[in-house]
Amino acid sequence: MADCLVTFQPDDKNVNVEIGETILNAAVKADVFINSVCGGLGKCGKCKVQVKGDVSSRDSELLSKEDKENNLVLACESAVMGDIEVFIPEISRAAKHQILVKSKEIDLKMLTPLTRKYRLALPVPSLEDNLSDLERIKKSLADEKIENPKISLTLLRNCAKILRDNLWDVSATVAEEDGRNEIIYIGPKDAVKKHFGLAIDIGTTTVVVSLIDLNSGEIITSQSNYNKQIVCGEDVLARINYAEEEEGGLARLNKLIVETINFLIEKLTLDDEVCRRGIEYGTCKDEITGIVTAGNTTMSHLFLSLDPEHIRLEPYIPTASLIPTIKARDLNLEINPEAVVYCMPCRASYVGGDITADILASGMSKKEELSLLIDVGTNGEAVIGNKDWLASCSCSAGPAFEGGEVQHGMRASFGAIEKVALTVIPELSGEGKDIKVFYKTIGDIKPKGICGSGLIDLLAELFTHGIIDKGGNINDIASPRIRHGDEGKEFVVAWAEETSLGRDMIAVRRDDGEIEMKEAAGKDIIITEADIKNIIRTKGAVYASCSVLLKSMNYKFDDLKKIYIAGGFGNYIDLKKAILLGLFPDVPLDKYEFIGNGSLGGARLALLSRDAREEAQRIYKMMTYIELSVNNMFYNEFTSALFLPHTDMKLFPSVAEVLGEAQE
Amino acid sequence: MADCLVTFQPDDKNVNVEIGETILNAAVKADVFINSVCGGLGKCGKCKVQVKGDVSSRDSELLSKEDKENNLVLACESAVMGDIEVFIPEISRAAKHQILVKSKEIDLKMLTPLTRKYRLALPVPSLEDNLSDLERIKKSLADEKIENPKISLTLLRNCAKILRDNLWDVSATVAEEDGRNEIIYIGPKDAVKKHFGLAIDIGTTTVVVSLIDLNSGEIITSQSNYNKQIVCGEDVLARINYAEEEEGGLARLNKLIVETINFLIEKLTLDDEVCRRGIEYGTCKDEITGIVTAGNTTMSHLFLSLDPEHIRLEPYIPTASLIPTIKARDLNLEINPEAVVYCMPCRASYVGGDITADILASGMSKKEELSLLIDVGTNGEAVIGNKDWLASCSCSAGPAFEGGEVQHGMRASFGAIEKVALTVIPELSGEGKDIKVFYKTIGDIKPKGICGSGLIDLLAELFTHGIIDKGGNINDIASPRIRHGDEGKEFVVAWAEETSLGRDMIAVRRDDGEIEMKEAAGKDIIITEADIKNIIRTKGAVYASCSVLLKSMNYKFDDLKKIYIAGGFGNYIDLKKAILLGLFPDVPLDKYEFIGNGSLGGARLALLSRDAREEAQRIYKMMTYIELSVNNMFYNEFTSALFLPHTDMKLFPSVAEVLGEAQE
Repeated sequence: MADCLVTFQPDDKNVNVEIGETILNAAVKADVFINSVCGGLGKCGKCKVQVKGDVSSRDSELLSKEDKENNLVLACESAVMGDIEVFIPEISRAAKHQILVKSKEIDLKMLTPLTRKYRLALPVPSLEDNLSDLERIKKSLADEKIENPKISLTLLRNCAKILRDNLWDVSATVAEEDGRNEIIYIGPKDAVKKHFGLAIDIGTTTVVVSLIDLNSGEIITSQSNYNKQIVCGEDVLARINYAEEEEGGLARLNKLIVETINFLIEKLTLDDEVCRRGIEYGTCKDEITGIVTAGNTTMSHLFLSLDPEHIRLEPYIPTASLIPTIKARDLNLEINPEAVVYCMPCRASYVGGDITADILASGMSKKEELSLLIDVGTNGEAVIGNKDWLASCSCSAGPAFEGGEVQHGMRASFGAIEKVALTVIPELSGEGKDIKVFYKTIGDIKPKGICGSGLIDLLAELFTHGIIDKGGNINDIASPRIRHGDEGKEFVVAWAEETSLGRDMIAVRRDDGEIEMKEAAGKDIIITEADIKNIIRTKGAVYASCSVLLKSMNYKFDDLKKIYIAGGFGNYIDLKKAILLGLFPDVPLDKYEFIGNGSLGGARLALLSRDAREEAQRIYKMMTYIELSVNNMFYNEFTSALFLPHTDMKLFPSVAEVLGEAQE
Repeated sequence: MADCLVTFQPDDKNVNVEIGETILNAAVKADVFINSVCGGLGKCGKCKVQVKGDVSSRDSELLSKEDKENNLVLACESAVMGDIEVFIPEISRAAKHQILVKSKEIDLKMLTPLTRKYRLALPVPSLEDNLSDLERIKKSLADEKIENPKISLTLLRNCAKILRDNLWDVSATVAEEDGRNEIIYIGPKDAVKKHFGLAIDIGTTTVVVSLIDLNSGEIITSQSNYNKQIVCGEDVLARINYAEEEEGGLARLNKLIVETINFLIEKLTLDDEVCRRGIEYGTCKDEITGIVTAGNTTMSHLFLSLDPEHIRLEPYIPTASLIPTIKARDLNLEINPEAVVYCMPCRASYVGGDITADILASGMSKKEELSLLIDVGTNGEAVIGNKDWLASCSCSAGPAFEGGEVQHGMRASFGAIEKVALTVIPELSGEGKDIKVFYKTIGDIKPKGICGSGLIDLLAELFTHGIIDKGGNINDIASPRIRHGDEGKEFVVAWAEETSLGRDMIAVRRDDGEIEMKEAAGKDIIITEADIKNIIRTKGAVYASCSVLLKSMNYKFDDLKKIYIAGGFGNYIDLKKAILLGLFPDVPLDKYEFIGNGSLGGARLALLSRDAREEAQRIYKMMTYIELSVNNMFYNEFTSALFLPHTDMKLFPSVAEVLGEAQE
């Protein structure tokens, strides 16, 4: 088969692919990200690219006349036919985004990590002391209260040589599962100081890996990147569909997540901090002997190559929830092949290991007081309870706060508007109201879109300034920023000249037929009425699920002593504004606590503490799950929550006050 | 690479090999056995074959002038250079031999096999009962008191489909190790009746596999064959040398034993008895979920691909003695890949899992009374003790009783003389004494050699008739049967015209240059003085090790309540004669008990009974090992035992009586 060279710009990355492969696939291979909400089905139109060279593209109604004039094609609908150069416009590029690694500081009373390391100064064998190599190791470990450990055949095969090469003075790494110990590594004696583990947050969108010193509990360094599976669809349902409908779909999804993690491990072990500590690259990989992952149920299944089909179909049954400990070897992870991988238990198909980890990180399952935990992502999950009981539910919140379903929405990456404030100057002669928009972008660069926290600010400001009504409709106010666009009424957040949106280097054909690179003109960043309705649906679903959860358990929001907000989304938002919109319940602000990336924090806890691992199992066992998809109460609550903040203002007294409405 | 077709006669088996491969290797590939004591090093001269076609042979002093005239070459020193036909003379052929499968009947109070099978009629999941597939299985198993079992990722990956294909009515097979359960197979519900295991005796020479019904404990059928490793050397030291000195030696030895076992499994599962019971071939393999193997320490290491190097070197340390349970998958055994393989614990480098199995089969470790166990093979092992203690030792007895080190010695195969009686007619005019030799062969065909039990009979008869003296020297008696041969004095056991020895079809070149097949003349079967000395050394080593073992523990042979004789060798010998020669101690015959193939019997016990598996571990722990190779007492005892029956006739009062000697 002839290979074609594909060069991606502006990254300037090359990859060889076979004739007929899609540009989208080529991008995955080249480690270049192109947006693809639909997972390469040609349905979302997010993967527009400009091509120089021979491609065969299917026509699409998602391409405007202007797109076609500019040689734009859909990356998923275009086959590479020869050597080509591909220009990825900013809008199609999945930007490097701000990733929240910091977790709520965890309290480690005692370090009881997933794997422990012991120095074994073994007696040298003699005719009088003729124990076998394995029994000699076991006898020495028995002094450390490690009784009758198992060992894999692979490791046993290397034992004789390792012991003799190291003159019987070695280190042994032992893993424990359900009280049963296993020797998973035997190395030089000085390796006792080098003892590492990984905490991994396997997000649908983003994967974060932290390298942890298992001797001290310290996070040495972290790395994160997009989940390479994005090319197969943005949300879990798209991924499950991909696994079902594409030939070899499951295998490919599994390969992509494993590649993502291996890529991050490679980056971690080459990290400056690792080098500074004098840990050699190879040693570091060998000495990584324990992993804890936290991911939603679908991500956990795909990571383990378990068929996710039944997660999607009623009655929504996962293959495994309390996942047995697995060897790194069986998952093709490029660390010590005997390393043990512990996956956070998944309570149900839509309340996964990420939520178990959130609960662990929040500590709510160990407290007397009643708490609520809210994790807002593409799915919104809520958990209520205390040390004696837990109840959970999940709703398909939609990706509005993560850049989906909103025309100029984007993830929290560089160039995203993350804070917004409005000032309205009442009358401007002849031109209507002068609405000034103040915003701050991540990285303080020109804006190219709006991320979740920016959208909350924006909606709250539009609402308090009377620009939108309770139903999310844009009021008829005379102002240059309010206009009718292709998709109905819209509000201009930033004018074209201020933005970097659309300001890509693009190839245009000159009169002489040659192709020339030119900066395109910027575009206005807007929010449409349709966008606003989508955001309201998302916030309504989150609020309604919390509300149903409490009612099912016969509690009111006032009964809550604490509300934990988890997820990368959670740390940047303005609580007051989120309450004002009716996203979160109207309770005193000091009851709220942000726990940051609880998924990663909980994974780290479980990696370091046996108590936390046991608690994770206990959480699984005591948590009930309420299925909202067939719940009438949820439908009613959801409908009532499709207003700003809510149809029942009694539920939002502080908002009523702000809006100057009398509380009935 | 050009392939050469090699045809072996008289088997008429073909195999294609590459140019340059040795005939010995080609024979292994064709499943044709050629003797090779030295393991293909060109040192033993046992692999003489006759070749028609193009071979390149190294010259050898082991080939006589006559051999060369008959186109005989050493199979290990001859490279195949084209299509050839190879005639294997009877003497070079490892004959199909009588294999002792029967074991001492075992007492199974309760069937607690290595793997157990349960029918699980699972509740069909619903929105109200949304347990994951795995938790659903676990919950159902908990009703059977199987708590929190493990499961492999491979099996878990198939779970969803199996459960749904079988409409939630399935069978689950569970293995237990050290109190921890693991689900190893999920199949259709009716598979509950089909539940099999294998007991395997991995002998240095012979491998026996029994297919056991784990529901009833019954032996369905057994198969045995030579250990294919024979081509790499006949005894354990030759095998260890091969592993060390040949490139890829260990891998090859492992491959050969695995091939031997897989070949036997294939034969078992295609067996008439299996077919008669309506067990389908594929099903049968899937439903084999438990294996127990018993082998000496070297065989166990090679089976697991553990480096045997340190078994050979002082202080003789094996890599593993209490061998962890292993999956069939990791050993390339062609049965259910998740099947568990339990290897009998090996006490020391030269007291292996075969001896642990012998002890189990004898039951001596559970009795109050003092017993001795003797296993005579290439190595002789002896164990003394009772329910509270055990002591063991091992000596390199030599292969005299297995056909080695004796010119016309052979294994207990068809054509082997297994019983001998002499009548001496005092005076024959002019020709000396007329010694009549009565013998019986295995299969009642013409004799071609003498096996162990025949040698014991023969020596005892020669001794009691005064033909040999206490030192094993042949007395100067005028008789046609006593003569001087190439290797000194010899006794003719059977005349050429009675034997099939040497009576092969051989290819001879006719005057016209063509090659013609012709039956060779028969040969006398003889025993030489050198042969007799070798046998005496073997019996002396066995007796001396028993003697040292008893003395070390401050016991006398009279203190023994029971003597167990194990090993295929054991069932056919005449005890009185063995005592007469001083091989076994002179105690009342009713104290002796033959336990047959104790290795296989013990393996079956462990396969069927948890108590036996625990007892095997207890035997390992309580048994001490006495190293004879550095033991002065052994040397003295050995020297004293190099007479018939012994230098100290007080130890053999019944023999003294027979011989008419006064007891001092």
